[in-house]
Amino acid sequence: MGAGTAFQHASLGEAIARRVHQLATISEEGDKLTRIYLTKELRAASDVLLGWMREAGMNAHLDPIGNVCGRYEGEQPGAPCLMLGSHYDTVRDAGKWDGPLGVITAIACVAELNRRGKRLQFAIEVVAFADEEGVRFASTLLGSRALAGTFDESVLGTRDRDGVSMRDALVTFGLDPDRIGTAARLRQELLAYLELHIEQGPVLENRNLPVGVVTAIAGATRLAARLTGMAGHAGTVPMALRRDALTGAAECIGAIEQFCRADESSLVGTVGDIQARPGATNVIPGEVSFTIDIRAPTDMHRKCAVADVVRQIEAIARRRHLALQLDVTHENRTAPCAPWLTDQIAQAIAAEGFPVFELPSGAGHDGMAMIDIADVGMIFVRCRGGISHHPDEHVELADADAGARVLLRVIENFRPREDRAGAR
Amino acid sequence: MGAGTAFQHASLGEAIARRVHQLATISEEGDKLTRIYLTKELRAASDVLLGWMREAGMNAHLDPIGNVCGRYEGEQPGAPCLMLGSHYDTVRDAGKWDGPLGVITAIACVAELNRRGKRLQFAIEVVAFADEEGVRFASTLLGSRALAGTFDESVLGTRDRDGVSMRDALVTFGLDPDRIGTAARLRQELLAYLELHIEQGPVLENRNLPVGVVTAIAGATRLAARLTGMAGHAGTVPMALRRDALTGAAECIGAIEQFCRADESSLVGTVGDIQARPGATNVIPGEVSFTIDIRAPTDMHRKCAVADVVRQIEAIARRRHLALQLDVTHENRTAPCAPWLTDQIAQAIAAEGFPVFELPSGAGHDGMAMIDIADVGMIFVRCRGGISHHPDEHVELADADAGARVLLRVIENFRPREDRAGAR
Repeated sequence: MGAGTAFQHASLGEAIARRVHQLATISEEGDKLTRIYLTKELRAASDVLLGWMREAGMNAHLDPIGNVCGRYEGEQPGAPCLMLGSHYDTVRDAGKWDGPLGVITAIACVAELNRRGKRLQFAIEVVAFADEEGVRFASTLLGSRALAGTFDESVLGTRDRDGVSMRDALVTFGLDPDRIGTAARLRQELLAYLELHIEQGPVLENRNLPVGVVTAIAGATRLAARLTGMAGHAGTVPMALRRDALTGAAECIGAIEQFCRADESSLVGTVGDIQARPGATNVIPGEVSFTIDIRAPTDMHRKCAVADVVRQIEAIARRRHLALQLDVTHENRTAPCAPWLTDQIAQAIAAEGFPVFELPSGAGHDGMAMIDIADVGMIFVRCRGGISHHPDEHVELADADAGARVLLRVIENFRPREDRAGAR
Repeated sequence: MGAGTAFQHASLGEAIARRVHQLATISEEGDKLTRIYLTKELRAASDVLLGWMREAGMNAHLDPIGNVCGRYEGEQPGAPCLMLGSHYDTVRDAGKWDGPLGVITAIACVAELNRRGKRLQFAIEVVAFADEEGVRFASTLLGSRALAGTFDESVLGTRDRDGVSMRDALVTFGLDPDRIGTAARLRQELLAYLELHIEQGPVLENRNLPVGVVTAIAGATRLAARLTGMAGHAGTVPMALRRDALTGAAECIGAIEQFCRADESSLVGTVGDIQARPGATNVIPGEVSFTIDIRAPTDMHRKCAVADVVRQIEAIARRRHLALQLDVTHENRTAPCAPWLTDQIAQAIAAEGFPVFELPSGAGHDGMAMIDIADVGMIFVRCRGGISHHPDEHVELADADAGARVLLRVIENFRPREDRAGAR
């Protein structure tokens, strides 16, 4: 098809969905979608994206970390940009929409402006980040971190499960590891960073809404807990003399659930894995390990919740005469969305005739890295059943269309933050 | 050492402990005690036991299943016997006392009668059962079942983890698989079956008692439970919209513990193993499997408890919108000890100057098979910390001595059940 015709479909949503399906055919597994950082499939996908960006009227190139970067100049060349983005890598056996929807919608919006010959008072850049999922090198957000200038060079020496270092993989991909620093952008080049993404949760579906305004990308604290009691014969130790590590863990799991349920904000707490040792039907568990994942829309809220959960677990262990080992294994601070951006997103949603609904993002996104050099805004699009990271991940055409119309309206009505209004 | 001198030590307990340690040196692993059914180590142990039985004045032989059987005639040859026994096989990396204490104490008691030249109005038989633990052929109580005439011939075709059938293992051991039926004894040959065994639990230690009277060998019901909810992202699914299989399982585990604790008899309920799937820190568990083991001193009590626990789990699953699969994987009926025997044991304990304390056995014993051809009585001896099936298993000399003195007193004062008093 020729340039300029790609998005002349019945709806933006239909055209976007077609491209989402097209990009999903580029996979290292025939019947599943798996597109990992720095593979030849990622390279093939980057070529497709470069083509679509150019077709939409952008100058486009691959940056030194593998991000696909396109620029649509404003009325004056060299103006600061409104940056739109999402990622084009996937998890293994992924859904088609997580990442690509945001990239392809952003390109579609630019294509629409280009079709109308419309230039704005600022440039628009679209970035397809090369690694958000962190599947290959056990470090996430590599693409957006490089762009934000916070890439950790030590990751270059880490190896994937086949023993290939990130440095070697970059060279094989056709990139120069020593030039990653040049991918970094400056704060004054960016007016804001906006991302459209599927919700990956059931909240919008539950409220029967196609789109939502993200208030913050929730921070997360992960803990590893180990309770040690006394193993014993399931038949010979009376209930009153037991120091059962699993009944202790069960009480902790119940306490975490109850505490998070009682909270009136969007606090969530999850015990995702548990191991009982020795783990035999007829033996009282002497040791149980379990994980805890706690997320909240503000760091203060999360830290208070973690402290409260820790206090409760300590009390349970003490009362049951169990030894407790509790370690923080991971901590991510909250990336709050900028109110001046959420306001503009909310106005666009209302103007498109949808109720405005705000929600935090419980999942991580590139905005967590981008916040170091730009104010961040996010639009969520409803996905079926809240299912993500799974082949059943699905977005209705009408919802993809709604998301695109909202994003286009945000772009067309975009007003930089007041202190940047006159910036060049 | 010469015959008749073996038990002329400062105490019976000291002599018994010495032999327990001696038998424990016969192991297939140098630094651990492992003596499995039909191995050359079991054969070597049987030879030692045959020697000890003969030294104690018994006729002794190996029966066709591998049990070591000794007989000490009464005043009249061919009289019915009081049978004493326990097992001489072990689990892997076992303690020294589980089984051998009962066998060696029984031999010690006969040796003491023999030393005094004392014959009773009945014969005494001592049986060291060849397989109680069931480690090798995944079927327990093979020795006592053969003796009780309830051996299941189909087990002969089953194979150990090296692919050796029980039939071939019997032949290698020097036994004739086709003669197992001849190991069976008749009800009229036995006046009773008495076993002394370590408690394998902490109850006697907790009450500061060296010995106890067993009321019943508790039956057990084992269940496998599987709860299925909906997996989801730990960050994106609000608490109120979750169908978390693990928080459901935790509530079930808490309910089982609470129900059993509230029970005023010796009901015990144990969840020994649990698996959460997919089992990742940042994923809400969609499916959780766990085991349940419930034991009580009477079958009626156990069945009511199982029914109540099942009802509670069903209610929890229903309320949480979780699918439930619940299967009974194993069921053992209770083997009640005969009151006329527990009375005689209690009298002997009191006569030795110890408080009489009754308790059920939560662990299985050869009496569960022997009850098919004889009334059963059991004496428990305190073991340190309630620890069993572990190298730390330990019995104090004084307690081994107390157990032996009680057993000897029961034998010397033994009165057959009234309807058997005149039996020959």
